[in-house]
Amino acid sequence: MKRIILASKSVDRNWILKQAGISFKVIRTNIDENQFKETITNPVDLVKKLASVKANSAKNKLVKQKMEGIIIAADTIVELNGEIIGKAKDEAEAFNILKKLTGKSHNLITGLAITETNNSKLITDHDITSVEFLPLTDEEIYDYIKTNEWKGRAGAYSIRDKASLFIYRIVGSSSNVIGLPMHKLYLVLKDHFNLNLFHI
Amino acid sequence: MKRIILASKSVDRNWILKQAGISFKVIRTNIDENQFKETITNPVDLVKKLASVKANSAKNKLVKQKMEGIIIAADTIVELNGEIIGKAKDEAEAFNILKKLTGKSHNLITGLAITETNNSKLITDHDITSVEFLPLTDEEIYDYIKTNEWKGRAGAYSIRDKASLFIYRIVGSSSNVIGLPMHKLYLVLKDHFNLNLFHI
Repeated sequence: MKRIILASKSVDRNWILKQAGISFKVIRTNIDENQFKETITNPVDLVKKLASVKANSAKNKLVKQKMEGIIIAADTIVELNGEIIGKAKDEAEAFNILKKLTGKSHNLITGLAITETNNSKLITDHDITSVEFLPLTDEEIYDYIKTNEWKGRAGAYSIRDKASLFIYRIVGSSSNVIGLPMHKLYLVLKDHFNLNLFHI
Repeated sequence: MKRIILASKSVDRNWILKQAGISFKVIRTNIDENQFKETITNPVDLVKKLASVKANSAKNKLVKQKMEGIIIAADTIVELNGEIIGKAKDEAEAFNILKKLTGKSHNLITGLAITETNNSKLITDHDITSVEFLPLTDEEIYDYIKTNEWKGRAGAYSIRDKASLFIYRIVGSSSNVIGLPMHKLYLVLKDHFNLNLFHI
């Protein structure tokens, strides 16, 4: 059995893998995302690059520790009319992000990068889901911000928690909106790493 | 504060309400669904009727016990080319259902009924989300059935669990696919029952 390593501190990715009955270890990476955000303006290129950098950083750590496994890394952003929106730093920024997103359609884009400690293969993929919020009043946005779900989440919301009250329509994969496009993960692992997630 | 009562034994509806930070009590109802399934052929009419019957059954129980509250009931079915698909009785039926659904688009339809112990108001609504599976081999379907997620679920799958591996696209509300369209619940409670789910 190959060991799966999730190179992400995201509680949402952790949760969705567990829900799917998958056993895995978590490794944290600390990369400087800003240098990539400044130079890569295409949203898909950016999330694939960031996922790849996270995957390779985790791989280096594991190789040093002489640990083996398949490494899953991902990066998620929100894109609204070409603008790339990440995580909010504080409540004021969370408010501004949600105010921008309400009543309109935006894209949730996740880049996926998968590699293995014992060979040089690195496979990347991405997934895009469009998401539409109900029109929210400023008061409703303030009420939502009080839940603290905005913390650490691209676009300042969490679809599997209280944001379900105002997300009325998505087009695409719902696991991608949580932060990990599970069908893509399933296909990449099966097709490129000889690992079937139904068999673990 | 008005007490919320969920008239459903569904683990999924229970879960999604908790995730949204909502406190509630559960009451179980036992209604004979078959009499309605035999006479109501329109899927939306059927789920709204079943939700209403559940809501009223719960209300009668509560009134007898002199308990007060707002009652939420729901019923979910899958519709594929006009055919109404409910829960599987056994593994063989679960296999047949999943075999029908794979590689095609089907509709997940939830009827919602909300009433209150101390007045005669009964509001119903419904939500439809289309869901698409990856093409699955018979082996993959058998593997999925082994997870037991098919038990007690309309359409024999659970999107928030291992079925995330093969659900690649939905159009509509993702909470509706779990079994409770949260944005509809939010709006009905706010507009008709003077209850704001952000304030509880």
